[in-house]
Amino acid sequence: MANTFGHLFRITTWGESHGGGVGVVVDGCPPRLELTEADIQPDLNRRRPGQSKIVSPRKESDTVQILSGTFEGKTLGTPISMWVKNEDARPEAYTEMATKFRPSHADYTYFAKFGIRAWPGGGRTSARETIGRVAAGAIAKKILRQSYGVEILAYVKQVQRIVADVNPETVKAHQIEASIVRCPDQPTAKKMIRLIEKMRKTGDSVGGIVEGVARGVPPGWGEPVFDRLEADLGKAMLSLPASKGFDIGSGFGGILMTGREHNDPFHANAGKVFTTSNRSGGIQGGISNGQPVFFRVAFKPVATVMHEQETVDEKFQNTKIKPRGRHDPCVLPRAVPMVEAMTALVLVDHALRQKAQCGEV
Amino acid sequence: MANTFGHLFRITTWGESHGGGVGVVVDGCPPRLELTEADIQPDLNRRRPGQSKIVSPRKESDTVQILSGTFEGKTLGTPISMWVKNEDARPEAYTEMATKFRPSHADYTYFAKFGIRAWPGGGRTSARETIGRVAAGAIAKKILRQSYGVEILAYVKQVQRIVADVNPETVKAHQIEASIVRCPDQPTAKKMIRLIEKMRKTGDSVGGIVEGVARGVPPGWGEPVFDRLEADLGKAMLSLPASKGFDIGSGFGGILMTGREHNDPFHANAGKVFTTSNRSGGIQGGISNGQPVFFRVAFKPVATVMHEQETVDEKFQNTKIKPRGRHDPCVLPRAVPMVEAMTALVLVDHALRQKAQCGEV
Amino acid sequence: MANTFGHLFRITTWGESHGGGVGVVVDGCPPRLELTEADIQPDLNRRRPGQSKIVSPRKESDTVQILSGTFEGKTLGTPISMWVKNEDARPEAYTEMATKFRPSHADYTYFAKFGIRAWPGGGRTSARETIGRVAAGAIAKKILRQSYGVEILAYVKQVQRIVADVNPETVKAHQIEASIVRCPDQPTAKKMIRLIEKMRKTGDSVGGIVEGVARGVPPGWGEPVFDRLEADLGKAMLSLPASKGFDIGSGFGGILMTGREHNDPFHANAGKVFTTSNRSGGIQGGISNGQPVFFRVAFKPVATVMHEQETVDEKFQNTKIKPRGRHDPCVLPRAVPMVEAMTALVLVDHALRQKAQCGEV
Amino acid sequence: MANTFGHLFRITTWGESHGGGVGVVVDGCPPRLELTEADIQPDLNRRRPGQSKIVSPRKESDTVQILSGTFEGKTLGTPISMWVKNEDARPEAYTEMATKFRPSHADYTYFAKFGIRAWPGGGRTSARETIGRVAAGAIAKKILRQSYGVEILAYVKQVQRIVADVNPETVKAHQIEASIVRCPDQPTAKKMIRLIEKMRKTGDSVGGIVEGVARGVPPGWGEPVFDRLEADLGKAMLSLPASKGFDIGSGFGGILMTGREHNDPFHANAGKVFTTSNRSGGIQGGISNGQPVFFRVAFKPVATVMHEQETVDEKFQNTKIKPRGRHDPCVLPRAVPMVEAMTALVLVDHALRQKAQCGEV
Repeated sequence: MANTFGHLFRITTWGESHGGGVGVVVDGCPPRLELTEADIQPDLNRRRPGQSKIVSPRKESDTVQILSGTFEGKTLGTPISMWVKNEDARPEAYTEMATKFRPSHADYTYFAKFGIRAWPGGGRTSARETIGRVAAGAIAKKILRQSYGVEILAYVKQVQRIVADVNPETVKAHQIEASIVRCPDQPTAKKMIRLIEKMRKTGDSVGGIVEGVARGVPPGWGEPVFDRLEADLGKAMLSLPASKGFDIGSGFGGILMTGREHNDPFHANAGKVFTTSNRSGGIQGGISNGQPVFFRVAFKPVATVMHEQETVDEKFQNTKIKPRGRHDPCVLPRAVPMVEAMTALVLVDHALRQKAQCGEV
Repeated sequence: MANTFGHLFRITTWGESHGGGVGVVVDGCPPRLELTEADIQPDLNRRRPGQSKIVSPRKESDTVQILSGTFEGKTLGTPISMWVKNEDARPEAYTEMATKFRPSHADYTYFAKFGIRAWPGGGRTSARETIGRVAAGAIAKKILRQSYGVEILAYVKQVQRIVADVNPETVKAHQIEASIVRCPDQPTAKKMIRLIEKMRKTGDSVGGIVEGVARGVPPGWGEPVFDRLEADLGKAMLSLPASKGFDIGSGFGGILMTGREHNDPFHANAGKVFTTSNRSGGIQGGISNGQPVFFRVAFKPVATVMHEQETVDEKFQNTKIKPRGRHDPCVLPRAVPMVEAMTALVLVDHALRQKAQCGEV
Repeated sequence: MANTFGHLFRITTWGESHGGGVGVVVDGCPPRLELTEADIQPDLNRRRPGQSKIVSPRKESDTVQILSGTFEGKTLGTPISMWVKNEDARPEAYTEMATKFRPSHADYTYFAKFGIRAWPGGGRTSARETIGRVAAGAIAKKILRQSYGVEILAYVKQVQRIVADVNPETVKAHQIEASIVRCPDQPTAKKMIRLIEKMRKTGDSVGGIVEGVARGVPPGWGEPVFDRLEADLGKAMLSLPASKGFDIGSGFGGILMTGREHNDPFHANAGKVFTTSNRSGGIQGGISNGQPVFFRVAFKPVATVMHEQETVDEKFQNTKIKPRGRHDPCVLPRAVPMVEAMTALVLVDHALRQKAQCGEV
Repeated sequence: MANTFGHLFRITTWGESHGGGVGVVVDGCPPRLELTEADIQPDLNRRRPGQSKIVSPRKESDTVQILSGTFEGKTLGTPISMWVKNEDARPEAYTEMATKFRPSHADYTYFAKFGIRAWPGGGRTSARETIGRVAAGAIAKKILRQSYGVEILAYVKQVQRIVADVNPETVKAHQIEASIVRCPDQPTAKKMIRLIEKMRKTGDSVGGIVEGVARGVPPGWGEPVFDRLEADLGKAMLSLPASKGFDIGSGFGGILMTGREHNDPFHANAGKVFTTSNRSGGIQGGISNGQPVFFRVAFKPVATVMHEQETVDEKFQNTKIKPRGRHDPCVLPRAVPMVEAMTALVLVDHALRQKAQCGEV
């Protein structure tokens, strides 16, 4: 359970920061899909540390290898095993972590839960775990695009107090990738970059909001009760490292309206139904209604800051710690491909579920 | 899957608004727990329509019956089947719904997904589905309280723009129940009630925020990767009708701080570890750290408003609809026991998972 | 888990022998299937005690009621809740069971596992639990017949040493139902009935073999590795009360042949592939090959015999017990609809899984 | 689902015969268990081809590598990823398989299901898939032995008509390993070996029965209804390549007795309950009763025989095929560690489930 996500298109990730590597097994992928490493690597490059001056400088090529599940460039319908070797392991940078718990990290809670922890690089708490998600998500995105015409995008909407102006219904991928911060509003992107660079120089960090959108989702995906599409998206996003909140459509802001103001009127045109506003965020009663699905994810400022902080050690004595690992001043640019991947994994799973229960024989 | 929640303490709900009734099967409950209907009914009464002038006036006693899983007042370890009969079915109030889709309801999406829908009372989209959750949640709460000393509370934190001042670490159940709106800040509660009554009179509705807290959760509950405690809580809350957002600890507000400001310093005292602030909301790396777990859930204004609105019918023709069902001006007072129930279901499941993997033999 | 079977077409059963009743929730049923109690009751009548002189005389009408999941005679795609009230509860016949463990029953193991047990009528260990399976199986059979042209039959192949001569590829339902023992080989059926009546008179019991067959299963159902079709069928059958063995195709008998003798040659005719023998039992590598799927289930003699036997009590003292409950001299006639139901549940689940992963978009 | 086994101790296997390798991810393993490759390799060596003159001569060292989930020689509670490289790939020996379906293999059914297949070495249908099971099973066996005192053994009970005389309650591991056929009855083992050698020389194959036993299982493992211990064992065994049947305790033979003869009397001695016979095979009502759990698995003769046979090709034309891959005259000696592994995986999963639901807090 813990390390598996999805029901019909199902992924299981494994690996620690400084072990042999990290990987993922994808089970339930439809057969006969054209698939090679070239479909996976671009998204991993977007997730990779060291890709720009505003993200973690850890040196990893993150070159993916497909070990099973394909034959002559096509999927077999059997499990697709993929992995990436760990290259830039520097345990010496983490020796202090061997005995002390970093504040607002998972060092203490892993220790409390398991009674043991792999301290080098944070072990499994490292964001390297998301490599498997992004690799699997690249497959999910390809299926959604090819078989259903669904396009998934995410971008940085806000860094601390700097808010971008973006229309989720029209934003394009190249606009997002035009800046290293992955904000498609270019003047705002520049301000964001400046703030993040300042954080890097001062050894501090900032958080913000990533917005995700799925366009072209047909009506009928999602389940009525527990596995509502927004519930599964929410779980997916809240399972990402450093995420602290999720809302969809009008979200937290929608509570300021009354019901009359908030409702989305239906309108029909040429036998197609749509809504003339989209405060529902493309989902009603847990099921997609054909409008764009869009949502926001709040990411806290990265916990690793280059300053001495109060903490305790494994013997539960008070002490201080000053991290010496790589400093990632802002997780947002690298969170963008993670949000896209998790969105795709949720959607492809519901696409298969819809086909199973409600599709034609 | 769709109608089942939880892995080890697992519930399956069933029932439509106007069918024979609604119910739940609880599988995985520990044996030898004292349990009768008297443990369940109080929470159902808090969820019941008609309990006060500010909620839906539908007349339902919602009297629960335990059909299996207990013997001589104790749980057997076998499935606990509980149900409630539907009493106040008035299909005539819904005839217009037979052919038209209510805006921002799930009528259209159910139709799009299943090609059929039970229009009387909204069928399974009715909030009556949550009866099963609240009944099962009452069992979960009892286990958590008796076996682990965990206390779970929820309360109305905000109605539209009216925000209450509540300390989640100290708030008491009787303070919450002291007002019909279930806000423990009494002067603010009065304002909330006035606003909701105004909505009722004008046939409109308002939303807001329910805050939930679990106190006494020991360190170590939750899973590192996909089944993080906050991810499962988020999914649980976002599966509630009308919910649009979830955040935990510092949440969306936390993005305004820098990492240095945001981190929670650890401190040890007499062999116990705690944090001197709790922006983490009691969870780090997906695992509880022993501090109170608290979070917020945004609920949109109820979609049923007593005004004519634009919509389409089942033949995809434009038309208008004016609902004649019961008018629920604000879902929040009744959402409080739902939030508590879902919190308890998530926590008891993780308590059992922790025991399974990491407990003593 | 424990009380749930299936992945996409999923059932959860509940209920004890002498509680309020027994029931089942079916989740994942396709929508728009015509369904009323009249589709369910006939199979329940075949499972019912008191149906003939050679089965348990317990008086139960076993009248099923559908509580949810249908509307105007069609399935909604939402959970179908069905139940049957317990009528003929005679706890006084079981008072000795309150303190003593019946040999080769589950009284002791339930007590060892849960530390509590519902002794009247055996509680959840009663074969009444299978009512939910048979009710759900009736739905599965209808889907298989209507949507896929798959026909499922089971019959009594052997009672103790009396073996019937039946061709699984051609046997008809009316031939099976022509005798109360449900053996389509009528001369042999008479011998079987005589033996069972003798057992009834002497307070003893006999077991035997039920053979099941599914005809019309298309190639491609089943999964390669763990969820092989024969593995899921085997689990399904071994989960039935009193079953002790399962084999498929050539089964245990096939080990006497060599590979050359045992292999099923493929042959093609008019673009269709078939095998000229069927020692594979219609399954190769866990996946159906289009030939009839047939298998055998061994049922032990019923443990309740009307004779004094040695046992122990709840205080772990040696004692003797002489059951006074209803005497069922042979479970086989009533096991026939159970085997059909479980076969249908396995097949419909794999049909949906095949559609999800390998079906057209 | 398809490639995952278990609920709490859960394994996912991956890999094809001639791809990069085969592997397994183990999720849910308790933390702080001492574990290195040295715990795994011995069982892989028992499963390995080329280990003796009576098994497949394929040359594979099958050297396992642990990629994640351990730290300083102990398990972390995180996923344990293990893999083995494929070495002796000889696709040229399989070129005929590229277009023709081998009789009684899974070539045709994979093609029918997925519309594509990895023909070299049989792809995922190869018994190499069981490497992951045996590796994971070695961990399960260690947990069972260390934490619960449970000992699991399997041995060859029958090869075609040659039946060994073995007492499952007393047989020792070294007696089993004393012969290359893994039959602890040494005179019979010699006859078995002679028969298998004869098959090898004639290019034919034989099947038989592997018997498995688990000693020291405490009362209370297993679940009452669908996840009965024998049902899960049956599924586990029937998921092994070439298995065709499973029975437990008295099994198919038990149907010759009457109920009076078949029942196992309980007896108490010094506060412990046991049965004076064990026709139940250690399981009653799906739950272990403290007696040895023993069962039999029927394996058909291996389908690959070195003789020309009738078959069809991918264009559904009739043709003939004469395999040129390695000839494995009898799967039984290598099936022994597979049966042990699957037994251990079932038992450790139920041990954790029992702890979760019924264990002390």
